[in-house]
Amino acid sequence: MDSSGLFKEIRNKRSFLCVGLDPDPQKLPGSVFETDDPVFEFNKKIADATASFAVAYKPNIAFYEALGATGWWSLEKTIEYIRKKYPEQLLIADAKRGDTGNSSERYARAFFDNLGFDAVTVSPYMGMDSVKPFLSYKDKWAVVLALTSNSGAWDFQVDVEDKSVYPLYEKVLAKTSAWGDIDNMMFVVGATREDMFYRVRRIVPDHFLLVPGVGAQGGSLENIARSGMNSRCGLLVNCSRSIIYSSGGEDFDSAAGKKAGEIQQLMEMLLREKELL
Amino acid sequence: MDSSGLFKEIRNKRSFLCVGLDPDPQKLPGSVFETDDPVFEFNKKIADATASFAVAYKPNIAFYEALGATGWWSLEKTIEYIRKKYPEQLLIADAKRGDTGNSSERYARAFFDNLGFDAVTVSPYMGMDSVKPFLSYKDKWAVVLALTSNSGAWDFQVDVEDKSVYPLYEKVLAKTSAWGDIDNMMFVVGATREDMFYRVRRIVPDHFLLVPGVGAQGGSLENIARSGMNSRCGLLVNCSRSIIYSSGGEDFDSAAGKKAGEIQQLMEMLLREKELL
Repeated sequence: MDSSGLFKEIRNKRSFLCVGLDPDPQKLPGSVFETDDPVFEFNKKIADATASFAVAYKPNIAFYEALGATGWWSLEKTIEYIRKKYPEQLLIADAKRGDTGNSSERYARAFFDNLGFDAVTVSPYMGMDSVKPFLSYKDKWAVVLALTSNSGAWDFQVDVEDKSVYPLYEKVLAKTSAWGDIDNMMFVVGATREDMFYRVRRIVPDHFLLVPGVGAQGGSLENIARSGMNSRCGLLVNCSRSIIYSSGGEDFDSAAGKKAGEIQQLMEMLLREKELL
Repeated sequence: MDSSGLFKEIRNKRSFLCVGLDPDPQKLPGSVFETDDPVFEFNKKIADATASFAVAYKPNIAFYEALGATGWWSLEKTIEYIRKKYPEQLLIADAKRGDTGNSSERYARAFFDNLGFDAVTVSPYMGMDSVKPFLSYKDKWAVVLALTSNSGAWDFQVDVEDKSVYPLYEKVLAKTSAWGDIDNMMFVVGATREDMFYRVRRIVPDHFLLVPGVGAQGGSLENIARSGMNSRCGLLVNCSRSIIYSSGGEDFDSAAGKKAGEIQQLMEMLLREKELL
């Protein structure tokens, strides 16, 4: 899917919601443990409850890797299930990979060819040859970390001590955006950095941004949309915990659907405000 | 194992060699495919042939992830085998992970608790909360990327255009070294950057450095040792392809052992030169 296809899907769904699939075994409801693959069962029910309100799903690979080979099976089955039943959804591996060219090629193969993801989050620290292998697949995306939503973003991405130089996240946006285009590259820009969306948009006005940090991490959807949206929406806003653990009980899926529906309604209003619907 | 234990082992083996276990199915000899698990079979034979010349093994996780769940099984078996038969070896997961605190905790659990590694390579881009979870395990190590050996290192780690500021890799060394100590933190410093070892050693004189890029990538062991060694050696030099694919034929293990032995002899000479033996 390219950026036009993604915008079309955003208009169809009246939503730019990405649902984070971060299954924590300690938070899953009892009933899913009665099945062979509790993580897959949980993801399947969350997807069924939320697919009509979302345009993307983003499994955080750390949650699967913590479960070893079993976790990989659950991930493979999750992707296969969503791909088949909801082929319109963009599937993003939140893997934050990045290695020498030779190794990044293998990560690209793992997530694009083998698992069938549409996009992978990529760390820019190791530079061009670490990012490029993710850009050489047709209709696939590298989602480069620029300004993340965690507290550690201030350590290197935004160096507040040195006001004379461009902060690292701006260098990353300026430099890496030249390696790809708006159809194979997005950037992670955290919702907890609302004031910086204007600076980000000066450098990459047309790219899609993947925005974590709304909900449990405290970012405001309205502010993000108003400062970060472009003429083709240009935003995918991710919610994980606030949706998938909306209820810890056996109504987890209907509660997740209800929460996703509320977010979709707000997103629809924001898209109308920008005259994109 | 702490830094004293590692130095002791370096003196025992008269070597500071780390062997990179990067099994590429296209390069493995035919005989290993006659077994149930070719990757494990290859690693096992490489380990048996090289263990007496090495103090560490470093599987590059990209090579295993490219094989899906099967690759994770091969990795688990490899680590279990080396841990049991060669308990003195330091086992480093070359994973280059780094995510929000919550997710990094899961990666730490995956590599330290579940797989039983001693060390994990970690990307510093996301800052303190992304690194700290790897530092909270007793006798385990975070190996932080500082100056990598690939061409992309020049994009952000060393910003040659701006001479007025400290390069990013120096900021990373200075800042992250305060989050841990010489017993739970090492740094990746590529062998292709020989001239910079002096600068690195001004900032982190006492830490162990994990040095990739000797051999296939062109770095010189002698130069690295002379500019980077400290009073407790302080270096782990990794060789991957130049050892494990020393021969592509059925003598791959004896050829790997021969090559590792040659490197060990050179390392012994360099340790003596520094009066560490």
